Amino acid sequence: MIRRGLQGAARLRHHGALPGAARILPRLNPASAFGSSTDSLVSRFCPEKTDLKDYALPNASWCPDMLSLYQEFLEKTKADGWVKLPSFKSNRDHIQGLKLPSGLAATSDKSDWRLFTRCIPVEGQGFEYAIFFHPSKKKSVCLFQPGPYLEGAPGFAHGGSLTTMIDETFSKIAFLAGEGLLTLSLNIKFKNLIPVGSLAVLNIDVEKIEDQKLYMSCVAQSRDQKTIYAKCSGVFLRLQLEQE
Amino acid sequence: MIRRGLQGAARLRHHGALPGAARILPRLNPASAFGSSTDSLVSRFCPEKTDLKDYALPNASWCPDMLSLYQEFLEKTKADGWVKLPSFKSNRDHIQGLKLPSGLAATSDKSDWRLFTRCIPVEGQGFEYAIFFHPSKKKSVCLFQPGPYLEGAPGFAHGGSLTTMIDETFSKIAFLAGEGLLTLSLNIKFKNLIPVGSLAVLNIDVEKIEDQKLYMSCVAQSRDQKTIYAKCSGVFLRLQLEQE
Repeated sequence: MIRRGLQGAARLRHHGALPGAARILPRLNPASAFGSSTDSLVSRFCPEKTDLKDYALPNASWCPDMLSLYQEFLEKTKADGWVKLPSFKSNRDHIQGLKLPSGLAATSDKSDWRLFTRCIPVEGQGFEYAIFFHPSKKKSVCLFQPGPYLEGAPGFAHGGSLTTMIDETFSKIAFLAGEGLLTLSLNIKFKNLIPVGSLAVLNIDVEKIEDQKLYMSCVAQSRDQKTIYAKCSGVFLRLQLEQE
Repeated sequence: MIRRGLQGAARLRHHGALPGAARILPRLNPASAFGSSTDSLVSRFCPEKTDLKDYALPNASWCPDMLSLYQEFLEKTKADGWVKLPSFKSNRDHIQGLKLPSGLAATSDKSDWRLFTRCIPVEGQGFEYAIFFHPSKKKSVCLFQPGPYLEGAPGFAHGGSLTTMIDETFSKIAFLAGEGLLTLSLNIKFKNLIPVGSLAVLNIDVEKIEDQKLYMSCVAQSRDQKTIYAKCSGVFLRLQLEQE
């Protein structure tokens, strides 16, 4: 298993567009590389004060199911150990003050970069979502309402939009739970289509963390749990971030 | 295998939000249900005259690699049996004159629906792509240039955007090659990140068609084939469309 993770990093190293990625390799090896606690990662990820806009807040487009379940989880953040993750326009905002492994370091410029799941700024038309995380249980719930710009079959969310939402939630939780940074694989089985404008509840678990890999699972279903939309598993590669 | 396909359809039937989906089932059974030839599907899919805007045309944002490979394939459409698929704003436009199985029939309204891969109208910022198809070889090539609104790790395309692009190409080819309509599963392994603004070439094959299922594979790589971005397999469920 580790061997494949290293192979993955080696492939990054050979990628001409990722200069200096060779320096990822040494950092993969020692177990002590993963030194940040989940708590410290969460508090860095969820700043109490920030000027950045949080997109994971209720708006007029949210359906009643989405709104009421959001309020329910917000209550749980007060006592039950759940944390609400803010959602900024770009991952660049989330990792402020942290240095990516050199192979992943993008040149900074003034382009209008957007995290894919925040690519559509019009309320209700694209990805509406909010992610909650329970650090000690290593569980997460993402409330996802796909808008009409995410269409696949007429009237239903594109399978790619659900896969994207799962990958994005996986990646945030993989990072917070174990410094998982890169998706190595996703395996998704679709069971039912999600009607545009309705709520899908994504229940995510960190299944195990082994050396350089982190294994996640997701069941996406309707709020009443009667309709399963998809089941997905994912494997992430752990790469430590440095303080800048 | 068939059993699972039917189970899938049965699940659609039990979905409260898909009224009348029970009528999908009888149409799944007889092999004769799949009566449309690839040629007739292709000619319906690629109308010689249409008022609809084709988004799969070169624009100023295309990188030189994308532009020159597009021209290369355009040449191949003149003699080598390749077809360029037009890309409309919504799948509703592609299936004009066809009736979806009743479980998939969406109510028509005046909402601004967009196919997920055409969700961002600003040139170069979202999904830039063009799909070519070789009907008799059952092969396809999709030229994909992800823009800065599809970001995951800073400077690189989100894994979900590549998965979406593959699923979208799979679904168009699954339909044309064998009336595949619904994605049942996707299995993707990521090998390298795609830098935003650069070209990824998706090479897609229809591996086999068995009764109700259609099996696809994809290798996404750089133009020089030196960097593999991802490998993906997908299974689609075949559901016949009726003429309206």
